[in-house]
Amino acid sequence: MVSLKGKDILHGNQFSKKEIDAIIKTAGYFEKALKKKDSLNLLKGKILATLFFEPSTRTRLSFETAMQRLGGRVISMASAESSSAAKGETVADTARTVDQYADVIVIRHPRIGSAKEAADAAEAPVINAGDGAGQHPTQALLDIYTIQKELGSLKNLRVSLVGDLKNGRTVHALVELLSLFRAKLHFVSPESLRMPEEITSQLKERGIEVMETGDMKEAALASDLIYMTRIQKERFEDLSEYERVKGSYIINEDLLKGLQKKMTILHPLPRVDEINPNVDAYPGAAYFRQVRNGVFVRMALLSMVMGKAVD
Amino acid sequence: MVSLKGKDILHGNQFSKKEIDAIIKTAGYFEKALKKKDSLNLLKGKILATLFFEPSTRTRLSFETAMQRLGGRVISMASAESSSAAKGETVADTARTVDQYADVIVIRHPRIGSAKEAADAAEAPVINAGDGAGQHPTQALLDIYTIQKELGSLKNLRVSLVGDLKNGRTVHALVELLSLFRAKLHFVSPESLRMPEEITSQLKERGIEVMETGDMKEAALASDLIYMTRIQKERFEDLSEYERVKGSYIINEDLLKGLQKKMTILHPLPRVDEINPNVDAYPGAAYFRQVRNGVFVRMALLSMVMGKAVD
Amino acid sequence: MVSLKGKDILHGNQFSKKEIDAIIKTAGYFEKALKKKDSLNLLKGKILATLFFEPSTRTRLSFETAMQRLGGRVISMASAESSSAAKGETVADTARTVDQYADVIVIRHPRIGSAKEAADAAEAPVINAGDGAGQHPTQALLDIYTIQKELGSLKNLRVSLVGDLKNGRTVHALVELLSLFRAKLHFVSPESLRMPEEITSQLKERGIEVMETGDMKEAALASDLIYMTRIQKERFEDLSEYERVKGSYIINEDLLKGLQKKMTILHPLPRVDEINPNVDAYPGAAYFRQVRNGVFVRMALLSMVMGKAVD
Repeated sequence: MVSLKGKDILHGNQFSKKEIDAIIKTAGYFEKALKKKDSLNLLKGKILATLFFEPSTRTRLSFETAMQRLGGRVISMASAESSSAAKGETVADTARTVDQYADVIVIRHPRIGSAKEAADAAEAPVINAGDGAGQHPTQALLDIYTIQKELGSLKNLRVSLVGDLKNGRTVHALVELLSLFRAKLHFVSPESLRMPEEITSQLKERGIEVMETGDMKEAALASDLIYMTRIQKERFEDLSEYERVKGSYIINEDLLKGLQKKMTILHPLPRVDEINPNVDAYPGAAYFRQVRNGVFVRMALLSMVMGKAVD
Repeated sequence: MVSLKGKDILHGNQFSKKEIDAIIKTAGYFEKALKKKDSLNLLKGKILATLFFEPSTRTRLSFETAMQRLGGRVISMASAESSSAAKGETVADTARTVDQYADVIVIRHPRIGSAKEAADAAEAPVINAGDGAGQHPTQALLDIYTIQKELGSLKNLRVSLVGDLKNGRTVHALVELLSLFRAKLHFVSPESLRMPEEITSQLKERGIEVMETGDMKEAALASDLIYMTRIQKERFEDLSEYERVKGSYIINEDLLKGLQKKMTILHPLPRVDEINPNVDAYPGAAYFRQVRNGVFVRMALLSMVMGKAVD
Repeated sequence: MVSLKGKDILHGNQFSKKEIDAIIKTAGYFEKALKKKDSLNLLKGKILATLFFEPSTRTRLSFETAMQRLGGRVISMASAESSSAAKGETVADTARTVDQYADVIVIRHPRIGSAKEAADAAEAPVINAGDGAGQHPTQALLDIYTIQKELGSLKNLRVSLVGDLKNGRTVHALVELLSLFRAKLHFVSPESLRMPEEITSQLKERGIEVMETGDMKEAALASDLIYMTRIQKERFEDLSEYERVKGSYIINEDLLKGLQKKMTILHPLPRVDEINPNVDAYPGAAYFRQVRNGVFVRMALLSMVMGKAVD
């Protein structure tokens, strides 16, 4: 029996394949349950604290929705301005303080390792909702859940990851999980934003087939799924280089027509130009369903770490 | 049978007279119900998202109170700083994202038309809580509800609207609704802040009696109700002009004594100097009751758009 | 019978000894009750408004936890930026507005006397969560509750208050309450941050034994309890003086070993350097238990002012 009771959720690679299966199954259970009822009573009386030292409306509201759909309550710090951090308090002290209030803690902080510090300080389970360039494991899990639902299986997948593969914590965590299911991976990026060599070589060592290319269409033709990410202007010193690169990684109707097959498209959002809004109505455009799936996956994680998961 | 189920609330002029009657009746029902019980269960399990790209504590807390008095839950973005908008996300994308979390969405945004964009993107009902210089329909509805309650009827009203009639979205929406009930209107403002000509002429075309003047006392003598608004310093290039104008639109005990009859006084608040605090105890000073009425009217709107209104 | 129904909580010295006993007893009841159940139903349907014109995550979340553990709901203004105050609204008007929404109001504001203004304007009970250099009575009450629990009694206490005794509203309110129980007080501070003369002489007039010293160890040897506070850099013109002073008021393992007896250590938090994290595991280190006690004490106050306290 898989149990996450009392555990912290800190890193994409902390999960066994069995645990991921259990999370997916539990999320699926909640998805079905919410079709019959708006909210459940599983975490009635429990309190979630969301501590966002770095603001993220999307992620914070997703967790707060998940908690409330489970019947629980929320206390919330939406930005660091209003925190004791301004007075020089350590993350550990803040976590230990909030531990006196809440039954489970979600933390986002700009510094790598901060979620771990919070987890070490607090008795309550701590969930990492992004620690700078570090990890964002619940995003990776909701990606996996979405892929399973959209494609029916996680086995024998052919996945193109596109955009800024160098800095994206989302794609780093995702390939960790995908590797458990032996996916075939295409890394599509400009030269300057390639997947870090250490990740690529680790994947290869584990026997994962990895192809690197700058050509999105070529990769897409050999894939079932495109995982699109935003290329951030700030990463470029040469703005003309940015404009050139950006222009070559855009999903629009032309591209999809050229593929002559159904393609599943994911994106962690927010997007800027990299997916044309015309594509939103395309059956394979799954990025808003992906957002919704985030609620189910976070419901699963919250209920499981509190030892209240359904069987 | 009037039904607003699934509808968006975007504009003061979207309502028929019948719909306004139904909203007033439903608000009245909730006002009575809250005298017996602190909260109801009508929206138990439902989630409201309040998205305030432009902060407004008063309006946000009014909606959040209304939702919770109905037994529902809230997720909240209190200011745009903490939003994906900073990363370049469109209002439509933000709305469609939050649509995956919430059952109903309230939005305030500094740009005209933004609430409509959100409504087009989201499946859940969207309520406009102010879109820049555009509309603020729930304020107009709570004004109407307050007038009905304070004066016993909406028929044959004589109303003075005072202050900045040029820029005030509140008074623009209010006169739309008042015109449905054939009120006689006095527009009282300095020359530079007159009601826009197009609104005045439209009203006249519809057969509404409109008088324009700079003299508040004269207008008050011929009215049952004064709707006061704040004159904003920022609107004036010439500060001495501002001081002169401001001084001539102030409600105090002297003015009320001079009227020799009961006058009902409304104000959308916050006020600065335009109503003297000495007036607060005056029986016709209805502006804090108006605030409370906002909760009942928003309870009515939330329950009606969710198809849960009482009969 | 003690009753706080409908009363405001504004000042540390507003309570009789009997009332403090009742608060402690009620807080103790809630502490026990929460061991059996995550939340209660005592304030079901009631709404708390937290108005923080000056941010304080710790205090705000403590109140919001307390309210929700009692089954109540919360509406929240976490910082003044998003408030009508920016438009020139008085605290009284804001309070009277929020009074239309909520059943009880907690306010923090940077100006002395602001909580009293809010209380005068609102019908609902108002709780002062800090008004600038003024009062912070719920902190003093939770300190008293913690002392009672840690030491078993409030009688014949010997207490060292250490650090910035000049500016700390926390210690000012605490000595008020301690004086009711005839504690023996040691004031330990650098010369420039001594307890204000008027407080010291008032205490002495009431027959309280007060000793002033700059030597923390000497005072600790003659005390059962050290109440530690942060020395703020901003208070010093001469930074070398700050460094010297700061260094002499630090609790670490060496100090505790030198005392050769168990010492109870409290701190209102956040701390910076004045208590070494190595001390956290020391049995007498009670400052995180103190944080948790804040929830029980605030549950007591919320339920008592709403007339819903248990017997």
